[in-house]
Amino acid sequence: MINPACIIGLGNLGLPMARNLLAAKFQLSVYNRTPEKALPLVEQGARLAGSAAEAARGSVFIITIVSDDRALESIVDDAFLSACLPGAIHLSMSTILPATAEKLAAMHAKHRIDYVAAPVFGRPEAAAAKKLWICTSGPEKAKKAAKIVFDALGQGVFDFGEAPGAASVVKLAGNFLLTAAIEAMGEAAALAEKNGVPRAALLNMLTSTLFNCPIYNNYAARIIAADFDKVGFTARLALKDMRLALDTATASDTPMPILSLLRDRYLAAIANNQGHLDASALALRPALDAGLNWMPQKP
Amino acid sequence: MINPACIIGLGNLGLPMARNLLAAKFQLSVYNRTPEKALPLVEQGARLAGSAAEAARGSVFIITIVSDDRALESIVDDAFLSACLPGAIHLSMSTILPATAEKLAAMHAKHRIDYVAAPVFGRPEAAAAKKLWICTSGPEKAKKAAKIVFDALGQGVFDFGEAPGAASVVKLAGNFLLTAAIEAMGEAAALAEKNGVPRAALLNMLTSTLFNCPIYNNYAARIIAADFDKVGFTARLALKDMRLALDTATASDTPMPILSLLRDRYLAAIANNQGHLDASALALRPALDAGLNWMPQKP
Amino acid sequence: MINPACIIGLGNLGLPMARNLLAAKFQLSVYNRTPEKALPLVEQGARLAGSAAEAARGSVFIITIVSDDRALESIVDDAFLSACLPGAIHLSMSTILPATAEKLAAMHAKHRIDYVAAPVFGRPEAAAAKKLWICTSGPEKAKKAAKIVFDALGQGVFDFGEAPGAASVVKLAGNFLLTAAIEAMGEAAALAEKNGVPRAALLNMLTSTLFNCPIYNNYAARIIAADFDKVGFTARLALKDMRLALDTATASDTPMPILSLLRDRYLAAIANNQGHLDASALALRPALDAGLNWMPQKP
Amino acid sequence: MINPACIIGLGNLGLPMARNLLAAKFQLSVYNRTPEKALPLVEQGARLAGSAAEAARGSVFIITIVSDDRALESIVDDAFLSACLPGAIHLSMSTILPATAEKLAAMHAKHRIDYVAAPVFGRPEAAAAKKLWICTSGPEKAKKAAKIVFDALGQGVFDFGEAPGAASVVKLAGNFLLTAAIEAMGEAAALAEKNGVPRAALLNMLTSTLFNCPIYNNYAARIIAADFDKVGFTARLALKDMRLALDTATASDTPMPILSLLRDRYLAAIANNQGHLDASALALRPALDAGLNWMPQKP
Repeated sequence: MINPACIIGLGNLGLPMARNLLAAKFQLSVYNRTPEKALPLVEQGARLAGSAAEAARGSVFIITIVSDDRALESIVDDAFLSACLPGAIHLSMSTILPATAEKLAAMHAKHRIDYVAAPVFGRPEAAAAKKLWICTSGPEKAKKAAKIVFDALGQGVFDFGEAPGAASVVKLAGNFLLTAAIEAMGEAAALAEKNGVPRAALLNMLTSTLFNCPIYNNYAARIIAADFDKVGFTARLALKDMRLALDTATASDTPMPILSLLRDRYLAAIANNQGHLDASALALRPALDAGLNWMPQKP
Repeated sequence: MINPACIIGLGNLGLPMARNLLAAKFQLSVYNRTPEKALPLVEQGARLAGSAAEAARGSVFIITIVSDDRALESIVDDAFLSACLPGAIHLSMSTILPATAEKLAAMHAKHRIDYVAAPVFGRPEAAAAKKLWICTSGPEKAKKAAKIVFDALGQGVFDFGEAPGAASVVKLAGNFLLTAAIEAMGEAAALAEKNGVPRAALLNMLTSTLFNCPIYNNYAARIIAADFDKVGFTARLALKDMRLALDTATASDTPMPILSLLRDRYLAAIANNQGHLDASALALRPALDAGLNWMPQKP
Repeated sequence: MINPACIIGLGNLGLPMARNLLAAKFQLSVYNRTPEKALPLVEQGARLAGSAAEAARGSVFIITIVSDDRALESIVDDAFLSACLPGAIHLSMSTILPATAEKLAAMHAKHRIDYVAAPVFGRPEAAAAKKLWICTSGPEKAKKAAKIVFDALGQGVFDFGEAPGAASVVKLAGNFLLTAAIEAMGEAAALAEKNGVPRAALLNMLTSTLFNCPIYNNYAARIIAADFDKVGFTARLALKDMRLALDTATASDTPMPILSLLRDRYLAAIANNQGHLDASALALRPALDAGLNWMPQKP
Repeated sequence: MINPACIIGLGNLGLPMARNLLAAKFQLSVYNRTPEKALPLVEQGARLAGSAAEAARGSVFIITIVSDDRALESIVDDAFLSACLPGAIHLSMSTILPATAEKLAAMHAKHRIDYVAAPVFGRPEAAAAKKLWICTSGPEKAKKAAKIVFDALGQGVFDFGEAPGAASVVKLAGNFLLTAAIEAMGEAAALAEKNGVPRAALLNMLTSTLFNCPIYNNYAARIIAADFDKVGFTARLALKDMRLALDTATASDTPMPILSLLRDRYLAAIANNQGHLDASALALRPALDAGLNWMPQKP
């Protein structure tokens, strides 16, 4: 069975996802703003499209995974939707505002295209290993049809009903929760070190017992190594996610003091020339406030 | 081999620990301020002492697990230490200030008693199931000798060196980290519900993937059920732990904004008649600020 | 000397300002989205325009004072500016983003209209009494020419140079500072009352000594009387100002933890049905967290 | 009329107060832990006592103004009170916990000495100029008798009733409020500078209008000049006051998020080698977080 599909956006996640779709024998068109990134995929059999609309034309599954709301909205407009097959399914995997998802879903309905929100959790390594967790919301039938795509990309799907914005809410809440864990580990590690206990001793104990789960294990390892130069996801991008979560919190009258703190932490990181580091460099802020400098010393 | 030991403090943790020591064939003296609690242990073979000093007399292992620094210091004074066997090992398992541990260790040294800090992580159910995690610091030889005690009580020991206060630092940092997780889950759950996603859907997804570890699983279940009346550990006691952590942070010049927030949350809970609830009722505060009421409706 | 002028926006501030301009013999056109508000001004000699552009036509001074950026941008577009006299001076007195001021100034330049940012500090009573404080930034010559307008409206002008957004920055920073004072007084008053000192005793002492200035005197009186139903400016509008300040802080990488707190306080007020109260009702939040209820009891 | 009085504690405030008492013809004994500070007073007619009890012996008014609760309690014990005239009046002017005031008042009552809490607001210059503001609580008759002392020291007295701790509560709440103003000004100034408005322009405008009062004028001048080396009161001592306020807040179940922030700010200042600066150096923290460095450049 041949499944014509396209993927628009070949960043840290989009690229390994495209590879997995090719491996799963999808007939794949790809598009990226800077086409160079697509070249290795072409060698693997992908068709390189000259525009997003060209990539979408004829695709049953249209996958978008771009950096933010603005990028998505600049691609998915009426002209784009007119180029799509009626009945096509748009799997929208970017991290965006729930409000944007709702607006887009309404626009898709006019063109008889199904909008399925399908943001993912996972770093680039997880994407490469087909280990993404996929959160979905949207029309039941479309989600069911998309199962073959999800199977090619992730290790599990969690569904949140028909509301177009629901999966986006979950994605933003999850990103908040993992960033909160980084800040909390940073504070705990600073307390330990200022009282004579190496942060490695503290965090190794906690992550092998009470907090033995991927988020704590991954970020504790980074904090112990003070390894923030190897970037999976920049602090600057993490700030964007905090802002999306805060905008959603504001629009729904939800005070979130830890979220406010995280926003301020990333602003401080950026104002102090750390915006290019990995998002986990957030943990440096409580350390610096405590007079500790965990940055690896350059030779 | 007979190991004369005593346990002082038969609260939520001390009682099941005493049972496990009896089961492991320790020759056990017990003492509690209110002796009624000791009666079932006497039936199982424990000797009921009329005072803490009487319990300690002749014991090779002296275990204390009481509510706070003041309670511990009111028991362990020079008179008490004079009653102990020279060479006895005091396993101090309460959650106390590192500074108190240091003070007590110095006092013990004069009496040639070994002070081993050995605070534990785990709720009463974990204590009953010999599933405590034990953090130790103090003299190497004493810790080695105490292995038979630890084996009878827990599922693992993590050592933090010779400094008497080190294990206390780890205990306070760990309690901070788990309380921070409760607040963060509360905020995330409030955001979800104000945007149409049930908190159960959000938390079940996250705790079966990125946050699949005991702390998140246990507290997420409580938050989903809004089940704060079944108390493992009261909000009021949790406030005490936050205060110990804050005092340690202040004494070491360590700013900890999430810890400050947690302190304020518990004060608000207590000021609004929720101090008797389980510590996880902290999660109600962000919900109430968002206009949500998760308390189970009484019939 | 006749000065043709117009005022667009007849809200709590615009209406008394219009009266003062009429009293100062300006030849005044007025426009408001709901025209009823303009009727008393017509009796005093104002000309009621059917649209903003009609009000602006022929005016040397075009004064706008509307609720937010969106309202201002919906009025001041190219069509509007084409209807204005070349060389006219737009005195933009609304509280808006500096970024919006910059955008508008560039648009004005194309039409050879001067854009002068001139936001004001003062409650409606101050506007009526010609006691506004006016902050300006923009072209020097235009500001000099506008002196006769400012003299008719306020008690003093503070200039912040040529950058179109500068006065907006000052307005947002000032609103932040006064809102911070409300929160701080609320916390101090709660501490006093929980320790047996009536908030009136505390605040009367402080505002007659160290804090003897308009902001503290006015808001202390409100907090003492718990008089939040008489609204000068709603909590909901105050939230809008906090958001503008936060957006400006985010765009300039400036972490502001008190500002984040204030945002969260207003969200909590709105989520708990207090959004319609005066902005000073913010002080209820720390009181409620402390278990105090300062709302006047309804009979 | 001769009024035998003594003053114990000759620090930044005690010294100028002693001078004013001598100028007002009090027959004055003085005591300080390091006696050198008393020498200039002896030239002006003061009697130098060899101990606090010796200073107090024969005094009708016993004035104490020392650095903290511990210093006060180490002086004022049963031996000290036994040395005092029955019917003597202790004017306790240090900044201490309300709980300490209550404990001391009870101890005084046994010795038939009146304990009058009389903490003061004002920097050393204000003390020299007889411009202190004095807050009192305690027995009515004693406060009335002490009027001649207060007249010699300050510009006004505010009374808070009979409860021994009431005046201490007001002092702590006032210190909190003025420190909150420093942080708020620091955040506002950082926002302004990151958006092109010099902090002097912003703060000069605000302190000549809405915030025209001593606290804002004094601290704005310091922040504008970045003049934190000339110390009236160190950051380290300010932290002590925040801790007293927090302890009082905790004991009374009063969450105070700005107070928690201020504590964390001072901890960060101390951890980063700024504890010796003036308390107003708190304003450097939001600036540093925003990437601004306001410290005057050393040549």
